Amino acid sequence: MHSFTIKAVDRNFAAGLQHKIDQKTKPLGALGQLESLALQLGLIQQSLTPQLNNPHILVCAGDHGAAKAGVSAYPQDVTWQMVENFLAGGAAINAFARQHGLGLVIADAGVAHDFGPRPGLVDAKIANGTANYLEGAAMTAAQCEAALEKGASIARDLAAKGCKVLGFGEMGIGNTASASLLTHCLTELPLSAVVGRGTGLDDAGVVRKKVLLEQALVAWNERSDDPYEILARFGGFEIAMMTGAMLAAAEAGMVLLIDGFIVTSALLVAQKIAPTVRDYCVFSHCSDESGHRLQLDHLQAKPLLQLGLRLGEGTGAALAWPLLVSACAFLTDMASFESAGVSEKAV
Amino acid sequence: MHSFTIKAVDRNFAAGLQHKIDQKTKPLGALGQLESLALQLGLIQQSLTPQLNNPHILVCAGDHGAAKAGVSAYPQDVTWQMVENFLAGGAAINAFARQHGLGLVIADAGVAHDFGPRPGLVDAKIANGTANYLEGAAMTAAQCEAALEKGASIARDLAAKGCKVLGFGEMGIGNTASASLLTHCLTELPLSAVVGRGTGLDDAGVVRKKVLLEQALVAWNERSDDPYEILARFGGFEIAMMTGAMLAAAEAGMVLLIDGFIVTSALLVAQKIAPTVRDYCVFSHCSDESGHRLQLDHLQAKPLLQLGLRLGEGTGAALAWPLLVSACAFLTDMASFESAGVSEKAV
Repeated sequence: MHSFTIKAVDRNFAAGLQHKIDQKTKPLGALGQLESLALQLGLIQQSLTPQLNNPHILVCAGDHGAAKAGVSAYPQDVTWQMVENFLAGGAAINAFARQHGLGLVIADAGVAHDFGPRPGLVDAKIANGTANYLEGAAMTAAQCEAALEKGASIARDLAAKGCKVLGFGEMGIGNTASASLLTHCLTELPLSAVVGRGTGLDDAGVVRKKVLLEQALVAWNERSDDPYEILARFGGFEIAMMTGAMLAAAEAGMVLLIDGFIVTSALLVAQKIAPTVRDYCVFSHCSDESGHRLQLDHLQAKPLLQLGLRLGEGTGAALAWPLLVSACAFLTDMASFESAGVSEKAV
Repeated sequence: MHSFTIKAVDRNFAAGLQHKIDQKTKPLGALGQLESLALQLGLIQQSLTPQLNNPHILVCAGDHGAAKAGVSAYPQDVTWQMVENFLAGGAAINAFARQHGLGLVIADAGVAHDFGPRPGLVDAKIANGTANYLEGAAMTAAQCEAALEKGASIARDLAAKGCKVLGFGEMGIGNTASASLLTHCLTELPLSAVVGRGTGLDDAGVVRKKVLLEQALVAWNERSDDPYEILARFGGFEIAMMTGAMLAAAEAGMVLLIDGFIVTSALLVAQKIAPTVRDYCVFSHCSDESGHRLQLDHLQAKPLLQLGLRLGEGTGAALAWPLLVSACAFLTDMASFESAGVSEKAV
């Protein structure tokens, strides 16, 4: 496996950034979380004037062998139908990407459907969906590596085009189930605490999902702590591809804009592989999928938005994007007390 | 006093809007708070395709006689200095308004400073700051009415120019103290629960502020429940002007984008005058100023952002603005299950 060299962000630069933030014409700390965001963006780029050039959202789509076991409220065909919807520009992520001028990359990581060559679709298909993890590994080690590499390659291509911010999104019927298993294996959080309604299971559906996922764990005889083995056992191709893209994006010094529960599960894999990836992550929102809050707590992450979203596709990342722009805007454009001739706080 | 005729929003239109929202290619409710926002915007405009044309932020500035008693961490001169900063484009609200293409109206409601005629500044000065409410009413009934009328007139001018969304912001050293008194008098919330750090008082400063505001209450012998009398006793000119602007904006069917603690205190006055104003309000954020959460709870309001802001100037309103655009974007631009050929949830 290719290894990733992700530099920890150099915090020596923090004092200079904080001084600049504190000299802006506002009470100390009055821009709250936007100030810590500006600090992080400045640290990632080691710049007092960070630039968020050429932002993109990468949406990876894939199918899950376990979907047929009934872990989702929707039929598996919805995966390819939604990919068609992305290509036609009709999905929520299309609307939000258009609104903000975000580039949108749609990658077929392993949808169980033959799209043929299609403008706007990156053909990164590893296979027509994963195998059913109730019966064995979701993917072979070679497939897992191919998905990681393909994701890394997409991120490297974007970096070469000057992309400084990469948001992540996904589509895959059954992938909250996969994300639950990955999260449990990577964090020690109890499985039942990180299994939720996904696209909208009712109470009975959630109980069934929990039973199936417990069975999936039991069926894994050779349980391991190795992130690659965990990913191959329970992952989806779209999750593995995002993991690879995250690692390469962080290696290239990009800002990683993390979406919801499934994207965060891909990050948990990435962090196990290379802990320094965490330095590059901005957490866009806390979703309504139970388990996402626990993932964020595990990562000691404070999300920007809490809007009760549970859609995926990178929609939370796209919705949070303008706050990153605002953080750079105040850092770059605001006057200082001195330049504006404004009196500072009385001592 | 001019009275305002604010129509309650007709909820008969809600079913059609909700149907449209539910037919979008996403799990039911998966866009969370953005869906209730889209519903509200559609209801305000009685439209399945609400338009947020020509949005503005109105920033009203005024000085407070009580500032000299030491209710703020900053000297009173900061009010006019910050107005100069607004006019020069160097404040946080300038940076965010530029980012989002929001029109910015800066009104001198009663700053204790002679600006002279200045491009970009609306001269709406009622007086050079209010009187000290520790000694008497902050303003006369005539001044209060003039401030309300002037605010209403600004909002009507914007409505005539096709402005459909008006965000509110303020600047005024000492105005969190004024907002605390107004909030207490209008909500029955205990005064001590709604007094906070303002621009950054330390613990001793907060204690002193509480003592002063208790004295201000005691000094008001003719205590009344009349919103005009409460406003005249403790308000600021900038607060009264925002109240008038809110009432006229709602009367004109505009969306009101509410900022933080002080703006919300102006809304509490407006709501006491005309309860239907509430239907038109979108709450942009919950600030870190203690008391704002209590105001929001009192109004049964769910804010869009919780970023620990406590800056004022309408910055929270500007930061939340793109979410309003997103709500309209998904309602207007997303495909339906039928139009996109996507399967619906299995029953």
